[in-house]
Amino acid sequence: MSTVAGCPLCAEDGGRLVVRRPELRVIRPDDAAFPATYRVVWNAHVAEWTDLPPAQRSSCMQAVATVETVLREALAPAKVNLASLGNFVPHLHWHVIARFEWDSHWPQPVWGPAQRTVQPRPAERLRASPEALDERVAAAFAPLDGY
Amino acid sequence: MSTVAGCPLCAEDGGRLVVRRPELRVIRPDDAAFPATYRVVWNAHVAEWTDLPPAQRSSCMQAVATVETVLREALAPAKVNLASLGNFVPHLHWHVIARFEWDSHWPQPVWGPAQRTVQPRPAERLRASPEALDERVAAAFAPLDGY
Repeated sequence: MSTVAGCPLCAEDGGRLVVRRPELRVIRPDDAAFPATYRVVWNAHVAEWTDLPPAQRSSCMQAVATVETVLREALAPAKVNLASLGNFVPHLHWHVIARFEWDSHWPQPVWGPAQRTVQPRPAERLRASPEALDERVAAAFAPLDGY
Repeated sequence: MSTVAGCPLCAEDGGRLVVRRPELRVIRPDDAAFPATYRVVWNAHVAEWTDLPPAQRSSCMQAVATVETVLREALAPAKVNLASLGNFVPHLHWHVIARFEWDSHWPQPVWGPAQRTVQPRPAERLRASPEALDERVAAAFAPLDGY
């Protein structure tokens, strides 16, 4: 598998490992402000999504869809935000972020300016704990082959 | 086709129309800071990407990949940023943004804090004019059926 020296996503999982498949993994970065955030990380080092051939792009997006579906079913968020940026770490990873009208940045992107202070803390406001979400994400991947 | 009163992407194209297909369109919002920015807008009103059935999700992402490929080939950007957010306008649209190390926000997301002032203006720094890019995007869609 292609790895690059100095790349943090080649060296480490990049967060709490929730799903590991041959092609990709799902991690939770444990973001206090956005606790219902996952990342789908392509295991091999590629910078751009279109560096993958179409079949692999498709399995990558199937994983993103699986995570999004769990977040929607478990949390009924106001919106799900999806993004593949990689300006800082150019190793393909998709952000899957459940957003709520009470969150610190709503309706701004999570990368924009904070709009408010949130109390009680975000993890306590979710319908499911981050740990319970992890279990649901892992369970959603269990029947899937081909990753 | 499903439309929602008051939704700006149901009422209007949302920018300069570059490609129109039955399922989706590609527009260029004419962003002075990020002139090599396109949006793939699903024509029917759906809020979340996973509101689409798998075959339509796939054709949506095929369009995103087509735009990304044109930007990479025409401009050799430092990175392409992809995002489906929709917090302000919850009508499915994918941002496809070519990023450069000289741009106003690099390496921050375009939604983050500006890092510098750019002179000469960004459109003049691109290897291809926005209008020439539009033509390349349109040409890349011409052979594709199924949208």
